[in-house]
Amino acid sequence: MISTRLTEKLGIKHPIISAPMAFAAGGALASAVTRGGGLGLIGGGYGDAEWLAEQFDTAGDAPVGVGFITWSVQRSPELVTETLRRRPAAVMLSFGDPRAFADEIHAAGATLICQCQNLDHVRNAVTTGADVIVAQGSEAGGHGALRGTLSLVPEVADFLRRESPDTVLAAAGGIADGRGLAAALTLGADGVLMGTRLWASTEAQVHPSHHDAMLAADGDGTIRTRACDVVRGLPWSTDFTARIRRNTFTERWHGHEDELAESISTAGPDYGDAWAAGDIDNAGVFFGEAAGIIHEIEQAVMIIDRIVSQAEDVLRTSAARCN
Amino acid sequence: MISTRLTEKLGIKHPIISAPMAFAAGGALASAVTRGGGLGLIGGGYGDAEWLAEQFDTAGDAPVGVGFITWSVQRSPELVTETLRRRPAAVMLSFGDPRAFADEIHAAGATLICQCQNLDHVRNAVTTGADVIVAQGSEAGGHGALRGTLSLVPEVADFLRRESPDTVLAAAGGIADGRGLAAALTLGADGVLMGTRLWASTEAQVHPSHHDAMLAADGDGTIRTRACDVVRGLPWSTDFTARIRRNTFTERWHGHEDELAESISTAGPDYGDAWAAGDIDNAGVFFGEAAGIIHEIEQAVMIIDRIVSQAEDVLRTSAARCN
Repeated sequence: MISTRLTEKLGIKHPIISAPMAFAAGGALASAVTRGGGLGLIGGGYGDAEWLAEQFDTAGDAPVGVGFITWSVQRSPELVTETLRRRPAAVMLSFGDPRAFADEIHAAGATLICQCQNLDHVRNAVTTGADVIVAQGSEAGGHGALRGTLSLVPEVADFLRRESPDTVLAAAGGIADGRGLAAALTLGADGVLMGTRLWASTEAQVHPSHHDAMLAADGDGTIRTRACDVVRGLPWSTDFTARIRRNTFTERWHGHEDELAESISTAGPDYGDAWAAGDIDNAGVFFGEAAGIIHEIEQAVMIIDRIVSQAEDVLRTSAARCN
Repeated sequence: MISTRLTEKLGIKHPIISAPMAFAAGGALASAVTRGGGLGLIGGGYGDAEWLAEQFDTAGDAPVGVGFITWSVQRSPELVTETLRRRPAAVMLSFGDPRAFADEIHAAGATLICQCQNLDHVRNAVTTGADVIVAQGSEAGGHGALRGTLSLVPEVADFLRRESPDTVLAAAGGIADGRGLAAALTLGADGVLMGTRLWASTEAQVHPSHHDAMLAADGDGTIRTRACDVVRGLPWSTDFTARIRRNTFTERWHGHEDELAESISTAGPDYGDAWAAGDIDNAGVFFGEAAGIIHEIEQAVMIIDRIVSQAEDVLRTSAARCN
């Protein structure tokens, strides 16, 4: 057991939140993480209300949260209102300005989690009244930005201690085992948010070929790119990129996004077909640098248990080195 | 005191190596780090034999090492031979294939340190017979690549445990306080190599205006770019970029390197003049993301002492959270 301000704030056993990964983090994964002692978040994705409702049904009684891509849900803000009727334990907002939603989320009794990629985001999240800040480093799979986790987390911890000492901090980006959880705690975080490690679980909604591709990859096998957003016609800010597997698609289009946008009438459907077929070469396969330390697809509860007990071992062993 | 395989291997008191930063890491800094209980490395830079000899003279009796930019010193390999006559405790090779120098370095009785930015580099360094591997993440100031420290270090630790268990591992990139040292140890490293934190010391050969610019910056104030290499006519591989302060120069030229190369006849001298004058807007100011947690220019010995005692505190406090 590792008790921190995050376990207290969220009323959970282990200081672990699962990332609300679009498509992959449905009700099965979120409820498994919550039952395993963490907090599971359903991925709000790009605003498919029906899919989201199904995922809450799947999660059933397990208290789970939800995460939205802020700029996307700003286009259909009623989705936040509808989702709050499901009484999520927490709502996480990432990639955009959270201010428009904060009051409504707090009024519904949910914990507001804001994911931040730099200090400006953190300043804004604190002003907005975030209860938990996730400092996400570039190692993360999927969308993110450029700061490294190891330097971002202590800097955010210092900022919060000075400016907003009641705000709780979770680290994200590259954390996939007990060493990463232990490191996050030593860097000043109160816990972690994990994506790739829980994407690599039996409960995640991931094509088996994508899982196999991740298991075969080392941590060098990914790249941050806009190509997968351009090909899907998703109007992501250029402040953010997605970390995906290096493959035929990224070799062809990364760095050639303008050309890709011009070819969208053929490249778009090709990408969609490849995604639907689980083709790992011609569509985005979304995982992070932590792929290099993940070697098995397992149940979420086993992943969480092992990470916590490994973190305890690592912290005790490291402390014992001090003499 | 934190005793690790790195302190044993190098015969030093604290598991801290100073980065051989070109221009900044002279004999004064290297000897101060060694006297402070770590291992100081003089920066071999781009092959100025006279400057290098002066720095060894300055270091005097203190056992220090030296670091070379591998591709650069390959153009004047006699510099390695000459330098080995100064009996360096260690030679670090970064940014290129170390194989051509390994035998000569070992024959001179020096420890071979290879800095690596990805798993391919590590595989090659192990084959080469590296005694110590530095796994350097993207957070680092100056030259480096794209993997984040937090995900790279445990992956390299696993690789070494499996393939070369006697090779010792140091973490680099974003480490500037006791939290970073503690995190490095929990991630599986035996110690750390620090650049920016020791660049921010009284002994580093850094223009006062550059120090002031770093103190004023947060960790978001840097960028990885090739522009500072293009303007200096340095034939760096595109596999590597330099992390420097965001300024007028990077705003103008980052992403426009081809145009910069065409303008070299005027842009080159302008950059050289700005560098010589300590102009923080029109030349590269080389520091890393750790700038956000550095608030004072101090003596190296004070920096090292505080980092070690903070790491001890952090590890003990974190271990005490496990119940």
